[in-house]
Amino acid sequence: MTGSRYKARILYDGTHFSGFQIQPDQRTVQGELEKALTLLAKGEKIRIYGAGRTDSGVHASGQIVHFDFPFEIDPVGLMTGMNASTPSDLTILDLDRADDSFHARYMAKGKKYVYRVHNSRFQNPFFRHFSHHHRYPMNKSKVEEALKHLIGTHDFTSFASTHSDKEDKVRTIYKASVEVNEETNEWVFTFIGNGFLYNMIRILMGTLLQIADGRREPNTIEQIITKKDREAAGPTASPTGLCMEEVYYEPQDIPGYSEVDDQ
Amino acid sequence: MTGSRYKARILYDGTHFSGFQIQPDQRTVQGELEKALTLLAKGEKIRIYGAGRTDSGVHASGQIVHFDFPFEIDPVGLMTGMNASTPSDLTILDLDRADDSFHARYMAKGKKYVYRVHNSRFQNPFFRHFSHHHRYPMNKSKVEEALKHLIGTHDFTSFASTHSDKEDKVRTIYKASVEVNEETNEWVFTFIGNGFLYNMIRILMGTLLQIADGRREPNTIEQIITKKDREAAGPTASPTGLCMEEVYYEPQDIPGYSEVDDQ
Repeated sequence: MTGSRYKARILYDGTHFSGFQIQPDQRTVQGELEKALTLLAKGEKIRIYGAGRTDSGVHASGQIVHFDFPFEIDPVGLMTGMNASTPSDLTILDLDRADDSFHARYMAKGKKYVYRVHNSRFQNPFFRHFSHHHRYPMNKSKVEEALKHLIGTHDFTSFASTHSDKEDKVRTIYKASVEVNEETNEWVFTFIGNGFLYNMIRILMGTLLQIADGRREPNTIEQIITKKDREAAGPTASPTGLCMEEVYYEPQDIPGYSEVDDQ
Repeated sequence: MTGSRYKARILYDGTHFSGFQIQPDQRTVQGELEKALTLLAKGEKIRIYGAGRTDSGVHASGQIVHFDFPFEIDPVGLMTGMNASTPSDLTILDLDRADDSFHARYMAKGKKYVYRVHNSRFQNPFFRHFSHHHRYPMNKSKVEEALKHLIGTHDFTSFASTHSDKEDKVRTIYKASVEVNEETNEWVFTFIGNGFLYNMIRILMGTLLQIADGRREPNTIEQIITKKDREAAGPTASPTGLCMEEVYYEPQDIPGYSEVDDQ
C-alpha cells in the first residue's frame, strides 16, 4: 500500500485558537488537524503544511494545507473522517489528491485577506466574533485615497512587526479596496498581494482606521512607507477582523495581477 | 425630581443566556439589564418589561423593552451608561422616552421572527453561532408550498409546546417566507404574525426541515393543523437559528397585515 499527497481548504474561527502553527500545550489549527489525521492513519504521525501561519485570533475561510497520507484512501472518506474528528470551529473542505510536488506554502503566488470593521457607536453582538469594532465615524473617500497609495511594489518595513524574521520586506499589493454596507455599517477591506509580512495587514488597518476617523491624512501612507520604520505607522489592529480568504497558486488567478508591475 | 417611562430596542446573542426572563442564579437578558439599570438608578430596583420572553439560546435584534426610571435623565446618556455596564453579547439601541401608558408586551400588535438554516454537508464555523446546521439537501419549492399553508388564522395547538400556558391557541400568520442565498447556502425563514405560542416557530421549523429534505410532504401542514395534537408535528428545532427581529405596535406597520383576514 502506498499513500499520496492531499490538498485541502480549511475554514476556522480563530477566536479560540492560539494561531495556526503547532505549539506545545496550545490549542492550534495545525495541532487539531494533525491529531485528527494521526487518528485516521492508525497512529502514524502526519505532518500538515499550511499556506500561511495565521496568528492567534485570526480566522480563515480559505487556508490551504497539504499532507502525505500513508495509505490509499478515498478523498471524500478522508474529508468526512477528518470533519468527524475535528471541533466545530474548524472545517475541512475541497479535500483532494495533489501532485507529489505540490507545496501549500512554497508554491503560493498570492493571497487574499479580508479585514472586517463594524463602525457603530455601540458594539453589535452579532458582529463581535468576526469584525473589529470602531466607534468613531469613518470617512470612506479618505480611506479610498489612502488605499491607492498601497497598490504596487513597495518596501513595507514600516508595516511589519519588529519580530518579523523576513530579510526582504518588499511586497507587491495587487488590490487594496473597501466596500461599505450602509445598512449594517460593516466595512469590508480586501487586500490581495504576492505575500504579506508578519502583522502587516493588522498594522495597515491600525493606520487606515486613524485615517478613516481623521487622526491622520491619506497621504501619510507614502510618508510611512518611505521612512522604513515601524514607529512611523499606526498601532496593530485586533486580530478579530482578519480572515485569510484565498491562496492563489497561478499568477493569472490573482485579481489585479496584470495591472500591477510586479518587480 | 420625577422620572419617566423609557422604551428601547435590545440586541442580544442568546447563546450564553438562559433566555430573556429573570430567574434566580441564571444569566438572563432581563437580569443583566436590570442589574445595569439599578446601578445607574443609584441602587433603586428597576423592573424591565420585554415584548416577548425568548427562550434559552434564542437571539434578538429587535426585542423591545420598557421600564420606569426614577429620576430625570437624558436618554442618550442613559443608553450610553447602560451599554457601558452590560456585557458584550447585549446591546441597547434606540432608547427614548415613551408615553406613561406604553407597555412593550401588552401593546404589541405583531412580531417578526427569523430562523436561519445553513444547509451544507459539513458545518461551517462562521455560521455556527446564529444558524441551525442541516446536512441533508433541501428542496425550496416544497418548502414554499408548505409555507403557504401557514398563512392566515389557524388554531396552532399542534405547533405549541405542551408546556404552553395560553388557553387560546388561535394565531394569525401574515407572512411566512424563505430566501435562499445560493452562494453561502444560507436559508433565511421569515415569520410575521400577531403572536406566536411557546416554541411555535421552532416546532414549525422542525416540521419544515422534514418537508425540505423529503421526510414529509408539503400538504401535511394542513393535516397537522387539523389534528390539534403536538404529536402530529415534527421535532422542536434548535434555538440557535432563531432571532426575534421586530415588534410592531401599529397594525399598519405589519407587512402583509391588510392581505390576511384577521378574525
